Amino acid sequence: MNFVTRHTVIYSFSPQHKPVEHVEPGELVLFETEDALGGQINTEETSLDELDWSRVDGATGPVFVEGIKSGDTLVVEILDIKVEEKGVIVTVPKYGILGGKRFNPSTKIARISKGYIHFDENVRVKANPMIGTIGVAPESGDIPSGSLGKHGGNMDVKELTAGTKLYLPVSTEGALFATGDLHAVQADGELCVSSIEVAGEVLLRFSLIKDKKPEWPLLETHNWYAFLACGDTLDEAAALATEAAVEAFMREYNWSFEKAYMFGSLAIDLEINQVVDPKKGVRAVMSKDVISLDSLLT
Amino acid sequence: MNFVTRHTVIYSFSPQHKPVEHVEPGELVLFETEDALGGQINTEETSLDELDWSRVDGATGPVFVEGIKSGDTLVVEILDIKVEEKGVIVTVPKYGILGGKRFNPSTKIARISKGYIHFDENVRVKANPMIGTIGVAPESGDIPSGSLGKHGGNMDVKELTAGTKLYLPVSTEGALFATGDLHAVQADGELCVSSIEVAGEVLLRFSLIKDKKPEWPLLETHNWYAFLACGDTLDEAAALATEAAVEAFMREYNWSFEKAYMFGSLAIDLEINQVVDPKKGVRAVMSKDVISLDSLLT
Repeated sequence: MNFVTRHTVIYSFSPQHKPVEHVEPGELVLFETEDALGGQINTEETSLDELDWSRVDGATGPVFVEGIKSGDTLVVEILDIKVEEKGVIVTVPKYGILGGKRFNPSTKIARISKGYIHFDENVRVKANPMIGTIGVAPESGDIPSGSLGKHGGNMDVKELTAGTKLYLPVSTEGALFATGDLHAVQADGELCVSSIEVAGEVLLRFSLIKDKKPEWPLLETHNWYAFLACGDTLDEAAALATEAAVEAFMREYNWSFEKAYMFGSLAIDLEINQVVDPKKGVRAVMSKDVISLDSLLT
Repeated sequence: MNFVTRHTVIYSFSPQHKPVEHVEPGELVLFETEDALGGQINTEETSLDELDWSRVDGATGPVFVEGIKSGDTLVVEILDIKVEEKGVIVTVPKYGILGGKRFNPSTKIARISKGYIHFDENVRVKANPMIGTIGVAPESGDIPSGSLGKHGGNMDVKELTAGTKLYLPVSTEGALFATGDLHAVQADGELCVSSIEVAGEVLLRFSLIKDKKPEWPLLETHNWYAFLACGDTLDEAAALATEAAVEAFMREYNWSFEKAYMFGSLAIDLEINQVVDPKKGVRAVMSKDVISLDSLLT
């Protein structure tokens, strides 16, 4: 098994980064990840003013996957996610969906044990460990690892859990994959800008699909597929997710735009990933009863 | 049991409308409803140009509920929803989330039988009968029944099904309740602007909560509550839904804004109702494990 330490961290996705590891499709790869705040907050007394913000939103990697090139799809099987027993959540003035209100910077440490996040005395929430940041290098340029796009990145999708598969469109040789920013739990929205940020380990296995790719990162669960789109507003993200999904239904059934558009009202669920990263994320969810993988790639 | 025929139809919610029926809390009331297109489309050859658009988006009612006044909450138990065996869906140029694309007006009739919508040869979707339009009169003015707001209206929430309860803030004596616009199924988004529009019957029972009301229409299912907010954009709707939910958590636990805001990232799911009505709708979903009804009303 390959192991990638949390000390090999990047703060952007870029084709210029030197890979820290080369792996073959089919091999197991264990990524150790730091929390999104760079492990800098260990007590509730830590002030956000003390943070080195250049160490925030890192991702472990990048890893070069052998045999993959631009135009292919990197298939990432999420085999396991382990999180540590202590997570942290913060409020940052001006940030989050209610950033226009006046409020104070604050920090909370939460214990994670026996499948629950213990948020406060007698207030707990069921844990649902998930990956916040996961992606590959874009064709050119340098995208901060705190942002998101067609390459993936800081997508913060609560459904990106153990047992799912992510299909990432590849734009550079070797893909240059990285991941990090685990959450012990996150609701759809991640509305205050952070969630239960936690260090941990992610066990992955890569495979490849040659010469075809999804329009957006594509998530597969037991029952459905979803395009993970983003935009400057939720409305834009929803329209982009819809467009990709409607086109997939046109391919699946050889339908006109009108027929696929109608069917979307019945069979494409538009759901919110997050509203704060700063691009907003919307997923277009399609049941496997009505769509096949082949129609989701072009 | 009280019965309200589909021939008593309103095209707006207004305190000026004369009630067609007076009912007591606790009584059963059966509302017969026309489809959202006014029953005008019976074949796929019917052109949208032939439609009388003044007969679209009607709601059956209004009903005067005895003993209720402004500042109270009308609790609506959805006991049963029956839909007819034939529904209709349309595309209307310039409408829906992809209204910026060029496409044609089109009409499709779909058969509904044995729990499925038969959309096309070998393509079916499981039925999930739901109420599109449900609301009470606003304090003043005249809100088209095709729109939505704090009074309810054309909210198009796929979770508004038999077995749920809706809490509507009341602004006028007797509430002046009306409902209509059933869908045999609808995905989150209702992205093409219509869904499987169908005539049918809704069996309801009203009860009252005096001198307290929710900030937005509040939906209760077996497991959760949700504020049903709306705004000119999805982003605005999401912020308004969040604000109401965060304030409810502040009341529930006597928390600071910061603490409730953090908790929202873990426990408030922001979900899309619809993106086309024309105000956009977002629900803030909160598990009953962490919030009580009392904190959701003020």
